[in-house]
Amino acid sequence: MNPGVSMEVAPTRVIEAALKLALDELDLPATLKEAMAYATLGGGKRLRPMLCWHSAAAMGAPGACSLPAGIAVEFVHAFSLIHDDLPAMDDDDLRRGKPTLHIHAGEAMAILAGDALEAASFAALVGPAVPKGCVAELLRELSAGTLGMIGGQVLDTLGTPGVVSPQDALEAIHRSKTGALIVAACRMGAILGLAHGGRTMLGFELGAITAYAKAIGLMFQIVDDLIDVEQPAEAAGKRTGKDAAAGKLTYPSIHGVQASREAIQRLHAEALQAVGPLGPAASGLVSLAEVLSARTS
Amino acid sequence: MNPGVSMEVAPTRVIEAALKLALDELDLPATLKEAMAYATLGGGKRLRPMLCWHSAAAMGAPGACSLPAGIAVEFVHAFSLIHDDLPAMDDDDLRRGKPTLHIHAGEAMAILAGDALEAASFAALVGPAVPKGCVAELLRELSAGTLGMIGGQVLDTLGTPGVVSPQDALEAIHRSKTGALIVAACRMGAILGLAHGGRTMLGFELGAITAYAKAIGLMFQIVDDLIDVEQPAEAAGKRTGKDAAAGKLTYPSIHGVQASREAIQRLHAEALQAVGPLGPAASGLVSLAEVLSARTS
Repeated sequence: MNPGVSMEVAPTRVIEAALKLALDELDLPATLKEAMAYATLGGGKRLRPMLCWHSAAAMGAPGACSLPAGIAVEFVHAFSLIHDDLPAMDDDDLRRGKPTLHIHAGEAMAILAGDALEAASFAALVGPAVPKGCVAELLRELSAGTLGMIGGQVLDTLGTPGVVSPQDALEAIHRSKTGALIVAACRMGAILGLAHGGRTMLGFELGAITAYAKAIGLMFQIVDDLIDVEQPAEAAGKRTGKDAAAGKLTYPSIHGVQASREAIQRLHAEALQAVGPLGPAASGLVSLAEVLSARTS
Repeated sequence: MNPGVSMEVAPTRVIEAALKLALDELDLPATLKEAMAYATLGGGKRLRPMLCWHSAAAMGAPGACSLPAGIAVEFVHAFSLIHDDLPAMDDDDLRRGKPTLHIHAGEAMAILAGDALEAASFAALVGPAVPKGCVAELLRELSAGTLGMIGGQVLDTLGTPGVVSPQDALEAIHRSKTGALIVAACRMGAILGLAHGGRTMLGFELGAITAYAKAIGLMFQIVDDLIDVEQPAEAAGKRTGKDAAAGKLTYPSIHGVQASREAIQRLHAEALQAVGPLGPAASGLVSLAEVLSARTS
């Protein structure tokens, strides 16, 4: 265990540079790459790559060893936003404070750029920076996270047949739509961290990281629901109030605003408890949980 | 080398069953799986899994060892058809003689089912049937083939800026749009065949398979262009004449029908020559080239 790794400088710039480089290196038509870059490099919190980074660090490895996983999950996230924004889906024209990709480059290009980012995410798992022995495990996590996310999107957009209570339906949507990819991000970071020979594997590490990720994932979505209810569009950088307008299930609409705030506190505490046994190496994950519980955009 | 493997029974039914099983096993909402099955199991020539199969056999291995690769490339092919048919793309309402998925299940579901099939294709590369040592290589081939295909689709749908002659533009589109995934199919089959310990690797096998695949891929597309010009929709099972109607570049529109027929013969001969050194084990690939050169739907 190496507590020093938690003192690494904030990795946001490193992640940004790695995303740009990964896009530059793709052998694709220039127009397609421009569309992919427009949607991927246009800001964003980089939550998922940060989770990869700090999960690797929690294993006692340098956070930077997580970058292939970080690129992969961020590409999946970017592709899902592009497709979610399409007219046939959420029909959104504003994302991160600028026009969505189908407004900027047309609907056909938005569909294809999303498809290409999904493929590029899997391509990020092969390369000199990924130990060959990890590839199968990383691939399993990334495909499970991506499929879980898409499954959640289906339930969210097209309904949850067979689920009776709105509480259960909402839980199923939230756990898969946002949660699956967040779990994949943390586990992939931890797998790379373990492979890069940080902490001696004691057997509980992946379980701890998974419990943290599940709590954070649900918390993230409840915070998102609250932002949609409480923040004006200018502050959030996207159209807000749209969940209610679309009659979508949200945590505040079912449980109320006060109960939503309490759930956030409870899940925050759960996340901290999960990574407690990892000691000071998990301090990055602890800070991230704090930031996420309090965000307003 | 084991010439006996080329005597295997036609694998189409085995491939069909493997595709169905792979879909059944996915942990996804039932509505999504139904949409994926509608688009994947509704007929189709299974050309790409057949190429995987016979490429593995050409390495002296049982063709069945190629099934994970066959599932992967067929899922990619199915996802690309779903998205290509969307209103914002080719706007097709008929595919394999029945309504396209967005007509059958709505546009949102078609977008999401395509996305899910793309992820499921990568998920097919991890499992007990895939030697762990192959996963990174297979992943590299599949992602390159998928990205190449999408890049070709961008050029085909949205134009080829910077390319001056229509001949060069068409060649670039054909080589990537159809060719990239066909090359991936053959190479993935061969990689699995080699891993399953058929023929002693002499170093030229992957090169031979790649040359075969490139010839077959271009030939396939020229045959497709001819079908679009010459066959009525009922025979082809899809709307024909649409390339000309859409002003798309095709081989016959640039080079004429007679020159297209000659190109098919030349590419057919090239393919046979490429796999000659593999001996009788390549007889499945030889038969497939024959069938593909003469198809009318």
